[in-house]
Amino acid sequence: MKCEIIAVGTELLLGDILNTNAQYLSRRLSELGIFCYHQSVVGDNPQRLKETYELAFKRADLVITTGGLGPTKDDLTKEISFEFFKKESVLHEESLKRIEDRFEKMGREMAKNNIKQAYFPKDAIVLRNDNGTAPGCIINENNKILINLPGPPKEMKPMFEESVVPYLSNFQNVILISKVLRVIGIGESSAEEMISHIIENQTNPTVAPYAKDGEVTFRITATAENENKAKELIVPIEEKLKEIFKENLYGEGDDTLEDVLGKILVENNLTVSTAESCTGGLLGAKLINYPGISAVFLEGAITYSNDAKMRTLGVKEETLKEFGAVSSETAKEMAEGIAKRCGARIGISTTGIAGPGGGTDEKPVGLVYVGVYIDGEVSTKKLNLLGNRQQIRNRATQCALDFLRRKLCISKHYKDIK
Amino acid sequence: MKCEIIAVGTELLLGDILNTNAQYLSRRLSELGIFCYHQSVVGDNPQRLKETYELAFKRADLVITTGGLGPTKDDLTKEISFEFFKKESVLHEESLKRIEDRFEKMGREMAKNNIKQAYFPKDAIVLRNDNGTAPGCIINENNKILINLPGPPKEMKPMFEESVVPYLSNFQNVILISKVLRVIGIGESSAEEMISHIIENQTNPTVAPYAKDGEVTFRITATAENENKAKELIVPIEEKLKEIFKENLYGEGDDTLEDVLGKILVENNLTVSTAESCTGGLLGAKLINYPGISAVFLEGAITYSNDAKMRTLGVKEETLKEFGAVSSETAKEMAEGIAKRCGARIGISTTGIAGPGGGTDEKPVGLVYVGVYIDGEVSTKKLNLLGNRQQIRNRATQCALDFLRRKLCISKHYKDIK
Repeated sequence: MKCEIIAVGTELLLGDILNTNAQYLSRRLSELGIFCYHQSVVGDNPQRLKETYELAFKRADLVITTGGLGPTKDDLTKEISFEFFKKESVLHEESLKRIEDRFEKMGREMAKNNIKQAYFPKDAIVLRNDNGTAPGCIINENNKILINLPGPPKEMKPMFEESVVPYLSNFQNVILISKVLRVIGIGESSAEEMISHIIENQTNPTVAPYAKDGEVTFRITATAENENKAKELIVPIEEKLKEIFKENLYGEGDDTLEDVLGKILVENNLTVSTAESCTGGLLGAKLINYPGISAVFLEGAITYSNDAKMRTLGVKEETLKEFGAVSSETAKEMAEGIAKRCGARIGISTTGIAGPGGGTDEKPVGLVYVGVYIDGEVSTKKLNLLGNRQQIRNRATQCALDFLRRKLCISKHYKDIK
Repeated sequence: MKCEIIAVGTELLLGDILNTNAQYLSRRLSELGIFCYHQSVVGDNPQRLKETYELAFKRADLVITTGGLGPTKDDLTKEISFEFFKKESVLHEESLKRIEDRFEKMGREMAKNNIKQAYFPKDAIVLRNDNGTAPGCIINENNKILINLPGPPKEMKPMFEESVVPYLSNFQNVILISKVLRVIGIGESSAEEMISHIIENQTNPTVAPYAKDGEVTFRITATAENENKAKELIVPIEEKLKEIFKENLYGEGDDTLEDVLGKILVENNLTVSTAESCTGGLLGAKLINYPGISAVFLEGAITYSNDAKMRTLGVKEETLKEFGAVSSETAKEMAEGIAKRCGARIGISTTGIAGPGGGTDEKPVGLVYVGVYIDGEVSTKKLNLLGNRQQIRNRATQCALDFLRRKLCISKHYKDIK
């Protein structure tokens, strides 16, 4: 099955937004064994959109669009779909009800415009949208399949996974199964060198590295006639990678560092607290991303000023005077201070210079100390981070979470963890 | 002048990389007054690339490609360009010298493959690459202009700015100027309805709405023979929008809510503090995004547990018992508690149910209270937010920041603000 992806929206042609949908869909389609020879972007213009449909169906059997399902006059993807397939559009009561309910829940009045989002051809498959007002649809006319999905990625992705993937799997006779392993604390080139002997001899499964945000992920992809056989092919490669990367390998699939750490904390009933200076809330916010963390997260302090560090964390005035707020000593007292304040077994701290101002020769922008207190023992780590203010704060947050994760993985007290 | 952008590379069709080049070029071209009606992506396949060239030149006078200029057999963008324009390719000595020098500087031997990167048609304009081995080129044949640029953004962007922008400016006699206004607290459809009389009668300037993350932006775009005239055309429309949206219009261009609020706080020397339950650090983290906030940000508390709310913020046990942690009363005591704790003039608080668990009929997931304390006065706002855990927490954070912004804008004490 050949596929084309069309993104609809003048904002894409003006460069206002980035077309992340095309990447997401291409990757997922290739994992499903469906190859995409063309991607295109067209504006909110009826004539050009129609021509783009015509061209796409000359080259492919499956066309997936994103965008143009909104309530405004500019949004006309669905309308052109009806026209292209000469379909009459009828009101889909269930969708209208869902849109009305959504507005009611938000306590806002539904604009008249929104009614048009509930119109579909009688024989189309309507795709429910749990994350926005625009439902999607599938039209299959003589084995030409058109799928209209909404533009916002947070609506498009769940709709694709929940409704489109099961639909498309009916048409495939070999399948691709992928497994992603996530590595932190090693650069991309080094990580790739460590497994170069595996990458060079690969056929099925294949191993593809990808670096982003201080992490390296390895996607292992196997092709087979069914899911079980594909999964069996993945196992030995996965084992090899785990052996090579050891504790640097922190998770799988869509795992995030905070998920992995949150799970360790909750399962071992390890109460935790945070004391942040330069990260200013990001560390707490990341940990609290993990649902269920409320069982162990006791308190966090954003102690941006020296006064707050002394008042709330009990950092000593002498420490601040002698070593400065950005120092290993302060990081230690912050981690210990927050843990003792709320009676938590664990305290994590960050203190550093995020910039753009505030750096000196001795303490440049990007210098960050992270501290971890566990059951009476404190340790710190010095970081020299690159990037702008936001990047430094985000990286400091990731490093602090990873520092605690490693400490817990190697700690004798939590031998069973990993 | 009409333009099309073609990105060449199978890795794009597999979803391995994100096509950021298309966004960059589209934005820059539209700023130069060159409109792009189509973007497309095609793989490293000679036949399909040639067909893509043919189609693009049927629709446009200017075609810009990115990618496929590398040294391997897969890289064939330039070769197809020669074929398409029936041009003979000759060695460009200067380029060969630069490539050889580059390898020498890196202390590596040049692979034979790289020689092909120095071949160009005799009458093409060769574009120097200071950041990689692949030069670009411009072929202008009977007013059909083809520009081949390298794929890596760090090579493509400087080449575009240094060589392509000056070249293209020769062909332009009108320019486009855009101004973006940012509106919060009104849904997209309602916002559009409020200015439908302006949108319906628009010619020059045009007004385009775009919704993202709970905001609506309006891009006003004017065409004129020079920058000043274009800016003059924008003024009356901008005034009208400001009049209609009043305090809902919070910023311009790339302004973020935290920038606007941070600026108000710092310029008026308003000391601020945060007390967060469900947002768990996000509110503090957002405020601290604003560089220079350290002058006024005194302290933040992540009081996820009831104990922490009582211990650190002085929330009364009776309040928690009678009204619950998620209540207007608790939000009030939290905001007041953190402000008094650190002596700040302003305290902001959030308390709510971010889900996925923890909701009841009476207090469903998405129920959030935000509180604002300013100089002795406390007010709260009840929110019913939709989405998953992360979305609810992000929206609660935006709403809390916006609630404070509005309070400050209408407050008599800060009349001069806005």
